[in-house]
Amino acid sequence: MVSKNELKLITSLQQKKCRDREGVFIAEGPKIIQDFINAGASLVKLLSLKGQFDGISVKVEVDPKTLKKISGLKTPNTAFAIFKKFPESKITRTGLSLCLDGIQDPGNLGTIIRLADWFGVSQIICSEHTVDCYNPKVVQATMGSLARVSLHYTDLAPYLKQHTPIVYGGFMNGASIYETQLPKDAILVMGNEGNGISSEIERLIDTKVSIPNMGSGQTESLNVASATAILLSEFKRSTGK
Amino acid sequence: MVSKNELKLITSLQQKKCRDREGVFIAEGPKIIQDFINAGASLVKLLSLKGQFDGISVKVEVDPKTLKKISGLKTPNTAFAIFKKFPESKITRTGLSLCLDGIQDPGNLGTIIRLADWFGVSQIICSEHTVDCYNPKVVQATMGSLARVSLHYTDLAPYLKQHTPIVYGGFMNGASIYETQLPKDAILVMGNEGNGISSEIERLIDTKVSIPNMGSGQTESLNVASATAILLSEFKRSTGK
Repeated sequence: MVSKNELKLITSLQQKKCRDREGVFIAEGPKIIQDFINAGASLVKLLSLKGQFDGISVKVEVDPKTLKKISGLKTPNTAFAIFKKFPESKITRTGLSLCLDGIQDPGNLGTIIRLADWFGVSQIICSEHTVDCYNPKVVQATMGSLARVSLHYTDLAPYLKQHTPIVYGGFMNGASIYETQLPKDAILVMGNEGNGISSEIERLIDTKVSIPNMGSGQTESLNVASATAILLSEFKRSTGK
Repeated sequence: MVSKNELKLITSLQQKKCRDREGVFIAEGPKIIQDFINAGASLVKLLSLKGQFDGISVKVEVDPKTLKKISGLKTPNTAFAIFKKFPESKITRTGLSLCLDGIQDPGNLGTIIRLADWFGVSQIICSEHTVDCYNPKVVQATMGSLARVSLHYTDLAPYLKQHTPIVYGGFMNGASIYETQLPKDAILVMGNEGNGISSEIERLIDTKVSIPNMGSGQTESLNVASATAILLSEFKRSTGK
């Protein structure tokens, strides 16, 4: 059984301020919940239909009606979990780091976190106006990668000023990424979906890079997650692990 | 004014069978509508708020209430257009072609069409169980690219059997794309989000390629649109325009 007050609290976790206050995030669906458990995430509460996650002490069996009430998805899943947020790790200064200057779409951030995990980029530094990485839509899109990539929210300008590696930025009018010498230690900055990298941050970029348009030239831009995929691939291909 | 019957017809265009019957597709929002107009798409009807698209003969001025009724979006936009579907062009046999074996997510297909346009891949051959490229969510995600890439829906197996270029397929266990010699004329097959390339099609693949996992190895896979972005980039980088 879940009390009315508990239901109210759980529903409130769709909002950032409530997640921040409680220090938790939510995930829906047995596959993604299992991914987070396997990755060592700390489970606070698990609400699920009968016959799933048996043996988990914090599991509460609920009916489909209750899941429907708390779900943020169009089609509620069979399990809903509350996890503790991951502890903040220290920012490292070696290897390739990703900086996000105002990514707004949760699906894009989720995809980018998954890409970082794939390419062994262990940290992502986000501007304060980047969408919350614990937003339920981000969590769903990361497919568990959120447990393996550490995200930091900070004022990007001071961070970039004090940082030593060369700062690259994804622009429409930069040098071809295919013809740019790329180092192992670097920061790659990607900008907002509509406006790109802000002018304040643009001043702190050492080298602007682009993905050459090989089509008719009428396509305005690539989706930021697609562009991040290609740029990360190029950094990793040309510098090796 | 839009009559009740017209409203009913317009609303029905969210469904594939009605779009197929009428030979049309819909797009929402002034930016994407303008993109399609610029790309030469044939406008059948345009419903928009006052002060937009003046001088367009098929424009009907409507109020926000009417737009709300016909919109497929959570937040209805200020303009709604009906375009004629693009005429089917002939399948070409040179250059790089993309084959999609059962992509289901409209956002993924839209992103892939935009990528193809960016990299000058002029045709995409889709299996019959791939999501409809005129699905409104696909249309919105292509950002006008749908006008510049020709899509064909067909039974993939006979198509691949009669085709001459080498057939590459994106797999989890293929050869590293970074270490594979790639030709200018080729077919790249990408599979379904959950199940990958079907076993029937797998038999027709000449070379399996992968994007090496450079992270902890715990990430199961990349999103299919991200993987397509990286593979297309590698084909185009290594073979030039």
